[in-house]
Amino acid sequence: MSQSIECSNQGWTRLQVLTIAVDIGGSLAKVVFCARDAGKLVFQSVETENIAEFMLLIHEIIQKHNGGSQSNVRIVATGGGAYKFHDLLCTEFPDVLEIARLDEMVCLIKGLDYFIHEVPEEVFTYNDLDGEHIVVPEHAKVYPYMLVNIGSGVSILKVDSPAQYTRVGGSSLGGGTLWGLLSLITGARTYDEMLSWAHGGDNTHVDMLVGDIYGADYGKIGLKSSHIASSFGKVFQRGPHSPIKESTADSILHPDTNTDDIQSRNRKFNNSDISKSLLYAISNNIGQIAYLQAKVHNVPNIYFGGSYIRGHLMTMNTLSYAINFWSNSQKQAFFLKHEGYLGAMGAFLTFQNSS
Amino acid sequence: MSQSIECSNQGWTRLQVLTIAVDIGGSLAKVVFCARDAGKLVFQSVETENIAEFMLLIHEIIQKHNGGSQSNVRIVATGGGAYKFHDLLCTEFPDVLEIARLDEMVCLIKGLDYFIHEVPEEVFTYNDLDGEHIVVPEHAKVYPYMLVNIGSGVSILKVDSPAQYTRVGGSSLGGGTLWGLLSLITGARTYDEMLSWAHGGDNTHVDMLVGDIYGADYGKIGLKSSHIASSFGKVFQRGPHSPIKESTADSILHPDTNTDDIQSRNRKFNNSDISKSLLYAISNNIGQIAYLQAKVHNVPNIYFGGSYIRGHLMTMNTLSYAINFWSNSQKQAFFLKHEGYLGAMGAFLTFQNSS
Repeated sequence: MSQSIECSNQGWTRLQVLTIAVDIGGSLAKVVFCARDAGKLVFQSVETENIAEFMLLIHEIIQKHNGGSQSNVRIVATGGGAYKFHDLLCTEFPDVLEIARLDEMVCLIKGLDYFIHEVPEEVFTYNDLDGEHIVVPEHAKVYPYMLVNIGSGVSILKVDSPAQYTRVGGSSLGGGTLWGLLSLITGARTYDEMLSWAHGGDNTHVDMLVGDIYGADYGKIGLKSSHIASSFGKVFQRGPHSPIKESTADSILHPDTNTDDIQSRNRKFNNSDISKSLLYAISNNIGQIAYLQAKVHNVPNIYFGGSYIRGHLMTMNTLSYAINFWSNSQKQAFFLKHEGYLGAMGAFLTFQNSS
Repeated sequence: MSQSIECSNQGWTRLQVLTIAVDIGGSLAKVVFCARDAGKLVFQSVETENIAEFMLLIHEIIQKHNGGSQSNVRIVATGGGAYKFHDLLCTEFPDVLEIARLDEMVCLIKGLDYFIHEVPEEVFTYNDLDGEHIVVPEHAKVYPYMLVNIGSGVSILKVDSPAQYTRVGGSSLGGGTLWGLLSLITGARTYDEMLSWAHGGDNTHVDMLVGDIYGADYGKIGLKSSHIASSFGKVFQRGPHSPIKESTADSILHPDTNTDDIQSRNRKFNNSDISKSLLYAISNNIGQIAYLQAKVHNVPNIYFGGSYIRGHLMTMNTLSYAINFWSNSQKQAFFLKHEGYLGAMGAFLTFQNSS
């Protein structure tokens, strides 16, 4: 998220009411507001589990950008946390003008629409071969399109017009799954640690490829030997299943203490290889489901949003690759610079023309 | 796989040539042959990594059922291992009549066709509410249907007639992924251990539900509070991400030794809960992709085969549930008693009428 978005030219800096939009998801709480002094939109986020810290952030925004007065502040909340933490918001900010609650999906498509139509250099395509290409709005704004929003879980929306959408599906295999499983296996403590590990890994040490099964391509159905047949398919084979044959001082198994098994196994399999494999597996899977939904609903353009992506090139390349592979290049994956803020942006915009 | 299949009434017990069909996959090597003395088909399997043991099994079959003579034995091989281990088969069985290689997908649909049309009480439906129901062949044999074969990975085939099929897709998230990840995390050493853990688990300890995000149902889009929004979505929150706030004697983190982190985290999350969550996640995901492929290709009936299922009720219930959920009960999941032997059965049948 390198670029900033002006808000002075919209007249938002001159509004009497300071609108603070929050989108509280399962893992991340996001905030968007217009900093009057700087004339720019501000985008920030805090882990939802640290909700007290998030409330403190809103207090700081009111202090710094509105002199501490709540009376002309409007809080616009969306995401599940708008409901779950509504009482907390009311307690923390008793003197604000209003605490509004808005539907998450409506905000997502409103935010997406704004980013596509109003923000230059926001939408881009990416793959490792061609690199990043900024998309001209004319090409990108054609309805209908799909929005695949990847947070803790995945929501897939078909957008027919600025005001018309359907949630066509979703998946429970999303960011929460990647970070949850990786932290369990590798002991990683931050997203960045896991992503940097993935970067240096070699997934073929844990994934079973077509070549591992066939010893060659499976030409008849067009699967190359390098195609991943089974994510993590090599682990159970080389793992605890045959302790005797692969026994070393480390890997001898003690029936009553699984911890020892886990340690020896985790020494056998590299954190980098595991991280890359799971990043591939989840991203590919989301890409495949997104393609299938786009196929079912006959939609050519697929926007990927949500905090899962984090501007990470390997993630975007995998999503793009999946869309190209499955659609035979008939469908196109698009990304956004402010990928994680669609919902918060939509919530912000809802009140900007009426205040 | 409780029931046996007669082969005396087919005339197979009187054939001069003993046909031994093998289907060597990424994780399991399967064998099917007709035991002349017992008049029944025999189904056996060995882990592919123990390929020497599998060769020994074939030697034993030849010894016991053909007096040790290879001269009137035909080995019919399919699966990737038919190619990868072809030289080994030739070395081990130099005096057999023939070592034939057959395409995996062709064998799968031939085997499926036989089980559907020729074997009574083979095909059934299952869900926790209604239990198991044997399907009358008339209902089940209508073309086209989908075959979702779940081994280490997943292959999805559309079958238009006994001889006509298309491999429409697949997924790398299959049995190899479930067993690989679970063995990494839990230290489990057998399939049965993981399945019995899953049985007693409570996935809501690790999965993030709609209710965890919203504090309630998300009624507008029809998602109940009990719906899984993010598989493993609670792990990274309660895991290493906020060590200070949740610190106990166990969970205090030592920066240089990830192993300690993993141990403390694995103590925080129960192996049973993890096993159930991942079994749900992978099965649901396969069910969703199967539904979407069936929708794209306008096919109402979906057969699930492959060694992933292992007759496990929770797995079948999850697959059935996913098909019902996504299709609004417009599509039907079917299972097979000999689920893991479609390919080997098809290979066996190919030569039974011509020898």
